[in-house]
Amino acid sequence: MGRTADYSKETCSIAATLEVVGDPWTLLILRDAFRGVRRFEQWQEGLGVARNVLAARLKSLVEHGVLETKLYSERPPRHEYVLTAKGRALSPVLLTMAAWGDAHVYGEEGGPMRFVHGDHEFEPKLVCASCGGTPHGLSIEAKACETPTVGEALAKAKVA
Amino acid sequence: MGRTADYSKETCSIAATLEVVGDPWTLLILRDAFRGVRRFEQWQEGLGVARNVLAARLKSLVEHGVLETKLYSERPPRHEYVLTAKGRALSPVLLTMAAWGDAHVYGEEGGPMRFVHGDHEFEPKLVCASCGGTPHGLSIEAKACETPTVGEALAKAKVA
Repeated sequence: MGRTADYSKETCSIAATLEVVGDPWTLLILRDAFRGVRRFEQWQEGLGVARNVLAARLKSLVEHGVLETKLYSERPPRHEYVLTAKGRALSPVLLTMAAWGDAHVYGEEGGPMRFVHGDHEFEPKLVCASCGGTPHGLSIEAKACETPTVGEALAKAKVA
Repeated sequence: MGRTADYSKETCSIAATLEVVGDPWTLLILRDAFRGVRRFEQWQEGLGVARNVLAARLKSLVEHGVLETKLYSERPPRHEYVLTAKGRALSPVLLTMAAWGDAHVYGEEGGPMRFVHGDHEFEPKLVCASCGGTPHGLSIEAKACETPTVGEALAKAKVA
């Protein structure tokens, strides 16, 4: 992954998500958060990402309300990073990515991850909440209503 | 979005997906493909992305079998890019991203996109295909089996 992209002038819900979590490493940082990683050193060792990059990503995720900091030591002051409800709501994005990687990169032999859902394996399936059907035959349209750009919506979401 | 990340040494289905579609712009190129965009100039005008970046992204998506080229003019030879079955299988990734952007960046007023599913709006919902439940209480574990790294799996997927 390389180069930069600025999605803030797009008017699009997908671009809005990418503006928050689309940076290189960010989705793997979140994957590890779902696995129970909470501390800077754990991410740094696990991912092998440069410390300044990791620090910038964690700071941005806290600013966007995806992670929150919790103090776990007072002397010296040390904090860890915990997923907020907004952050936990990203699990479908990670799960659908994992399902695609399993099916289309790892293929028949299956991928390296296992999603445990109570007493069984979680098999992600996206359905339409209205009709229960799959996204087959889906099309995307722009809404007629006036909506703000990603940059405007993010500025508002940060303030709220 | 900026800096580079190399996920090929990870052993992870999410990293596998990011290695194919995690580049800046790539997911927006695919979003537009789902909207019916098929030609270089349409993407270039719509996204405002540099021509060399767009050309590299399209080439990579064709190499990974996510898009395929179709000749639409013989003189001069001109081709367009069409989603393959492997590419169409990415719709749950884009839909879950859109749902999160709607709910957590755009918020109450709703986002700018509309997903049309026959005669109604598509409301994406991720469920467990085994039990029908939601991902609540899900945990992620590494499988005990030996699996190849993302780089090894991709090399194999490209050859197949």
